[in-house]
Amino acid sequence: MHTFQDLVKLFGEYFAVSHFPKTPATLYEPGDYFLSWGGKRIRPVLCLMGNELFSDISPDAWQVATAVELFHNFTLIHDDIMDEAPLRRGNETVHKKYGNNTALLAGDVMMIQAYDYLSRMHPKHLPAILTLFNTTAREVCEGQQIDIDFEKQTEVSLDAYIHMITLKTSVLLACSLQMGGILGGASEGNCKHLYEFGKNLGIAFQIQDDYLDAFGNPEKFGKEVGGDIRQNKKTFLLIHALDVAPPQEKEMLLSLMQNNPPDKVARVLDLFRACGVETWAHALKEKYWQESLQHLESIAVLSARKKPLLELASYLLQREQ
Amino acid sequence: MHTFQDLVKLFGEYFAVSHFPKTPATLYEPGDYFLSWGGKRIRPVLCLMGNELFSDISPDAWQVATAVELFHNFTLIHDDIMDEAPLRRGNETVHKKYGNNTALLAGDVMMIQAYDYLSRMHPKHLPAILTLFNTTAREVCEGQQIDIDFEKQTEVSLDAYIHMITLKTSVLLACSLQMGGILGGASEGNCKHLYEFGKNLGIAFQIQDDYLDAFGNPEKFGKEVGGDIRQNKKTFLLIHALDVAPPQEKEMLLSLMQNNPPDKVARVLDLFRACGVETWAHALKEKYWQESLQHLESIAVLSARKKPLLELASYLLQREQ
Repeated sequence: MHTFQDLVKLFGEYFAVSHFPKTPATLYEPGDYFLSWGGKRIRPVLCLMGNELFSDISPDAWQVATAVELFHNFTLIHDDIMDEAPLRRGNETVHKKYGNNTALLAGDVMMIQAYDYLSRMHPKHLPAILTLFNTTAREVCEGQQIDIDFEKQTEVSLDAYIHMITLKTSVLLACSLQMGGILGGASEGNCKHLYEFGKNLGIAFQIQDDYLDAFGNPEKFGKEVGGDIRQNKKTFLLIHALDVAPPQEKEMLLSLMQNNPPDKVARVLDLFRACGVETWAHALKEKYWQESLQHLESIAVLSARKKPLLELASYLLQREQ
Repeated sequence: MHTFQDLVKLFGEYFAVSHFPKTPATLYEPGDYFLSWGGKRIRPVLCLMGNELFSDISPDAWQVATAVELFHNFTLIHDDIMDEAPLRRGNETVHKKYGNNTALLAGDVMMIQAYDYLSRMHPKHLPAILTLFNTTAREVCEGQQIDIDFEKQTEVSLDAYIHMITLKTSVLLACSLQMGGILGGASEGNCKHLYEFGKNLGIAFQIQDDYLDAFGNPEKFGKEVGGDIRQNKKTFLLIHALDVAPPQEKEMLLSLMQNNPPDKVARVLDLFRACGVETWAHALKEKYWQESLQHLESIAVLSARKKPLLELASYLLQREQ
């Protein structure tokens, strides 16, 4: 058994090669550039852990883990084009550095390489994994489109937001785990619990992410807080505040969003606090975390085998064990 | 055995359904919109014909044919974004109608659906077909990137242009045929010949396409002639003319390209004629056509089985049989 830190390190080493042919460099260098920034590699590690929950890590798991990491990075390259983002983690984004057309193609070919890694696995599990991967890939695109659609709507329901977040970010975590489980020979029932564990964990993580963007310690959080508020981004916090705020406070919130005064972030945070958003967000995160844990507990393997997954989940949700 | 006209009709009927989930409509309607324009459906028909060359059409061939048509349409949607094309076949392009972001995502999800159709086939041939499909998909992106790179170069060699065209358009025709062959149980040798038949046919077709864009009868050709000349597009004709023109004529050609006078098309055509471009293009097309035919002849099945393929190829290259 490996700890999650072991697997992060091992996968980091495994992944630190070029995943593309040499030529044309104009197409492949942008992909290598983007991947060279590193990253937490959470999804591939989940895939490896999903496998190791049931058996020794299969050689195929490394291919599938690579596929899922490439797919994730493809979505980031295309998302950056859509968001017109100049920077990601302090680096110039691909479209900014190489132009939109090359970024579009570099993303396309990165997705194709993801499928190429999938195609290298033993044929036994290929159909099941390919089907799950395709469904998930489609859902990730759906989530991104719904997110775009939300920008044009003044109000979004909590259910609709959770649905969007589930598609946009959670299902890929869930899929990574389940693909590992399939490679490990997990039963259908165990696969289902593993998937639901990842899905609920992802939602809890997003609630935390929204929370930290507003209330986090900038030094710990690693980026300036209040970005979502400045951009009027729909988040768990804003949606709940608009939901529960008394008429006068709601009007104030909408007016701050429309007029963008210099002290907007501080005033929105005050309104959030007045609406009890902090307590609510903690409780909601806790709810999804508990749901997630229940599914982990329902997986029919010895508790000891679940330890690395529990550690990773606790780390992601900043919980002491 | 089916004629190619039969298969165009049958595939047209088979393909005339929505290939996407219902929601979110904002993501999937653009794909349905683009596919609703119809088209010659050459690639899927080649896949079906590649299969029928060796055996009765397998149910899987319809899935694979659908996959290849979806992949082709995905490339068109993304190409239109890159070219900033407002129209395709007289219709508003996806990005023009729905915006760049949705067009980008609608293309992404169309590629994913292509893989989803592939995943539905019998597992027996899945690894071989997936590997070929991935290689080809990657090559198509490479061809598109090399084409973008050419725009920044004043001169391009004939070999480099043929390499680009092979990747950008020919390999997908070749792959469609070979995937059909694989499903039909063809030997490796026969698959290779089938692939080369399609590849050379594609190059011959592109030479013809470049020729017709300059010298074609506008009524027969279906679009205004001289478009490539107006846009200074690298074509077989331009590359050859720059290659063989005496210094004075070459300078004139380059100056026309730079200054875009109102009579540019007519004057470039005169220079093309003076350089013997017409005769040369016909000879080059003939060379690839003969190469293509030789590979078709080398496929070890009865000549009668090759008739539909020969008819389709002759139709594409506007040849009497």
